[in-house]
Amino acid sequence: MTQPLRLGIAGLGTVGAGVVKIIRQKAALLETRCGRPVVISAVSARNKGKDRGVNLTSYAWEDNPVALAQRDDVDVFVELMGGSDGPAKAATEAAIAAGKDVVTANKALLAHHGQTLAETAEAAGRVIRFEAAVAGGIPVIKTLIEGLAGNEITRVMGVMNGSCNYILTRMEDAGLTYQEVFDEANALGYLEADPNLDVGGVDAGHKLALLATIAFGTKVDFNAVELEGIGCITIEDIRQAADMGYKIKLLGVSQMTGRGLEQRMSPCLVPATSPLGQLDGGTNMVVLEGDEVGQIVLRGAGAGMGPTASAVLGDICDIARGLRIPTFGQPAANLAVAPAAVAATPAPYYLRMTLQDRPGALAKVTKALGEAGISIHRMRQYDHDAENAPVLIVTHKTSRRDLDAALAAMTNLDDIQGTPVALRIESV
Amino acid sequence: MTQPLRLGIAGLGTVGAGVVKIIRQKAALLETRCGRPVVISAVSARNKGKDRGVNLTSYAWEDNPVALAQRDDVDVFVELMGGSDGPAKAATEAAIAAGKDVVTANKALLAHHGQTLAETAEAAGRVIRFEAAVAGGIPVIKTLIEGLAGNEITRVMGVMNGSCNYILTRMEDAGLTYQEVFDEANALGYLEADPNLDVGGVDAGHKLALLATIAFGTKVDFNAVELEGIGCITIEDIRQAADMGYKIKLLGVSQMTGRGLEQRMSPCLVPATSPLGQLDGGTNMVVLEGDEVGQIVLRGAGAGMGPTASAVLGDICDIARGLRIPTFGQPAANLAVAPAAVAATPAPYYLRMTLQDRPGALAKVTKALGEAGISIHRMRQYDHDAENAPVLIVTHKTSRRDLDAALAAMTNLDDIQGTPVALRIESV
Repeated sequence: MTQPLRLGIAGLGTVGAGVVKIIRQKAALLETRCGRPVVISAVSARNKGKDRGVNLTSYAWEDNPVALAQRDDVDVFVELMGGSDGPAKAATEAAIAAGKDVVTANKALLAHHGQTLAETAEAAGRVIRFEAAVAGGIPVIKTLIEGLAGNEITRVMGVMNGSCNYILTRMEDAGLTYQEVFDEANALGYLEADPNLDVGGVDAGHKLALLATIAFGTKVDFNAVELEGIGCITIEDIRQAADMGYKIKLLGVSQMTGRGLEQRMSPCLVPATSPLGQLDGGTNMVVLEGDEVGQIVLRGAGAGMGPTASAVLGDICDIARGLRIPTFGQPAANLAVAPAAVAATPAPYYLRMTLQDRPGALAKVTKALGEAGISIHRMRQYDHDAENAPVLIVTHKTSRRDLDAALAAMTNLDDIQGTPVALRIESV
Repeated sequence: MTQPLRLGIAGLGTVGAGVVKIIRQKAALLETRCGRPVVISAVSARNKGKDRGVNLTSYAWEDNPVALAQRDDVDVFVELMGGSDGPAKAATEAAIAAGKDVVTANKALLAHHGQTLAETAEAAGRVIRFEAAVAGGIPVIKTLIEGLAGNEITRVMGVMNGSCNYILTRMEDAGLTYQEVFDEANALGYLEADPNLDVGGVDAGHKLALLATIAFGTKVDFNAVELEGIGCITIEDIRQAADMGYKIKLLGVSQMTGRGLEQRMSPCLVPATSPLGQLDGGTNMVVLEGDEVGQIVLRGAGAGMGPTASAVLGDICDIARGLRIPTFGQPAANLAVAPAAVAATPAPYYLRMTLQDRPGALAKVTKALGEAGISIHRMRQYDHDAENAPVLIVTHKTSRRDLDAALAAMTNLDDIQGTPVALRIESV
C-alpha cells in the first residue's frame, strides 16, 4: 500500500484543473491521509495549448482520452469530461477494459450507462466511484452506501440543481418573473448550454436516478424519472405558497411503493420552516430517510470548482486507501428491476387557475374535482379584474391519477383560461 | 471476503439490543451490501437473565467482556458498554491485544484514552471505528475522514448534545426557567445519571475533541477543551437574543489558529436564520468547513436506539467490506501536539448584567469595557424596577482575554449585582 496511486485525468475544465491543483498543493497531506502518495501520471483535454492556471509540464499529455485510460502508468482513470456518450463513455469503457479503476463526476454518463458500466467494472474487479456526480461537494453517495448501510432506506429527497433553486429564490427575493430571472441567470453563465438540463429537471433527474439505485437496490432507470421543470412557476405561485407557509422547490423524491419505484423530479411545495424550505440560493440539500436512523439532512455547495474537486478527491483517497465497494453499494448484476410507480404516493396539491369571471365557472371546477373524488382543503379567489379571476385551491390528499382526471375534465371547460398549474405539497 | 464477519457484542442496553435486532432482521440485506454474512458469535452484559426483547439463545454468552473480546470466533469486538474506564477500557485493550478490530460508541473512552488505544491498534494492524460516538446517527466521522479527505479543514462546529438543545428550545417555547426545564428533562430521563455530563458540556466536549483530532491532525486532547455549560442561561437571555435575531445554542467550535488549537464548548449566540439557529429540539447538527468544499452541514438524530445502532452498523459494514483506515484518518503515532489556544479567536460578545439603579453605575461598566479596549456595538437597559436595572450590551469583536479583563474589573464594582453573563456571538 505504499506504492503511489497513479492517476490519469481526462478533462481539464474548471473541475479538472482544480483537481490537479489540489493534488499538487496537498501532496503531503494526501500522502499522510492515504498512507501512500497520490500522483498524476498523465492528463488529457481537447486543447493542449490553453492556459489553465496550473503547471502541467510534469505530466504526460494524451490528446485522446482513450489512450490516457489505457496507459500502463495509470491506476485510476479520472473522468471529468462530461457528456453521456462520446469520448467520456468510450474512455471509461476503455479504462475498465484495461483494468483501471474509475472516478467520475459525470451524472449523465452514469444515469444513461451506469448500469452497464457498473456490471462491466465489477466483472473485471474494478471500482467506479462518482461522489462528484450528485450534489457536488456533499458526500451523499458515501453516506448512502456506507454510512447508512444498516438501514432500509425509506425515502430519498433532494434539491440538487443549484441553478433552479437560485432562480426560485431570486424570483421571490426580487419579485421578478421566471423569464426575467432565467434570462439573468443565463447571461451570468449559471445555466447549462442547453438550459433544459437545468430548468427542465434533467440534470437533477440524473442525480435522483443514481440515488434511487443505491437507496432501493434497483437497476439505474433514468427513463422512469417523472420530470417536470420549473418553467410553469410564477411569482404569484411563490407568493401564494409563502402566504400559506410554503416554499416552492424543484424537489426530487424517490421511494419504494407497493406499486414499484417512484422517482419524481418536480416543483413541489414544502413547509417554509423545514430544512428544505429554508434552503435559499444555489445550495444543495439531500434528505435521506432510513428505518433506523430516521431523517438525515445534508447541505452544501452543489457545484463549483472547489466543492466538486473535493468530492473527486474523496473518491481518489478512498481508492488510495483500499476501499473497494461495488459502484452502487451491492453487485450491479443483482440489482432488482422495479416497475416504475408513476404518481403512486398520494399527496395534497396546490392548484392555480384563471377563471372567466362569469356565473357558475367556479362551480364547474369544484364539480370536476368532486367527480374525481378530490376534496378541497382551502380555496381562495383573489385580486381579480373584470375579466379574469385567479383561483387557488389546495386539495386534500389525492392520487396524481385522480388529479389528472380532474385536470383533464377542467381543460374542456370554456371557463378556464390556459392550463391550470398543479404542484404537489410534499410532506417533509 | 466471503467468510462471515463474526462479532462479539459487549453491552446489551438499548443500543446493544438494537444492534442485535438489526443484524437478525437484516441478515440478507447486510450480506448483499457487504458481500459476506455478518454474524454474531457471542454477547456479554451484566445481567444474563434480563429480557431485552431479542432472542439471544443462538449466541455464546460471556459474563466477562474481556473474555468475549478474546474469543477465537470473534473478528470484531463491538463495545457498547460505555464508561471511560473500567470494563469498557479493559475489554477494548484485550480485543486489540487479541488481534480483533473494534467498533465502539464510547465517546468518553475515546476522549480520554483514544490516543493510546489508536496507537496500540495501529501497531497491531487493527482498526477502531467509532461513528456512533459522535452525533449519533449522523455519519460525521466518515464524512470528515473520508468524504472530505481532499480538504484542509478550517473549522468544525456542532450542536452535539440533544438534551441541552432540548432544554434551550423548551425554555424558549414554553417560557420556562432553566431550572424548571432541567427538572422536567431529568424526570423524563433525558439526562445522564450525572447531569453535568449533559448540561455542563462534558459529553459534547468529548465529541468535539474527537472531531478536532480528525479535522486538524492533532493528538486527542480533551483536557484542552474549554467547557462552559448552559446553567447560566436565563429565559431573558433567550428572549433578548431572539429579539436581536439570534438563538442560543450549546455550540462546540474547533479551529486551528496561529496560537494553536482552539476547542470550545459553550453557549453561543448564532443567527436565528442559520442552519444552526434553526435547529430545534433534540436534533444534532455538525458543520464542517473545508478550504475546497466550503461549508457542509449535517443534521440528524444524535441519540436513540435506531440512530445509534445505524452508526454502529455502518462501522461494522465498513469493516466487513474491507475498509481499513487509521482510527483518526492518519497514523495516530504521528498526530501533532498542538498547544491549546484558549480563547484565541476574537468575536463579538453578548453581555447581560444587573446594575443597581443609581447614578454613574452604567458609566463604570462602560469605562471598564473601554479600558479593556472593548467598544460597544449596542446597549439597552430594560424592564427595570426601582432597585435593579438589567443591562444588555453587545460588544464589537474582542478577544476573550480582553473581555475577561473587563469582566474582572466589573466584578469589583458595587454597582453590579451577581456575575455578568457573557456569551460569544459565533459567526456561522
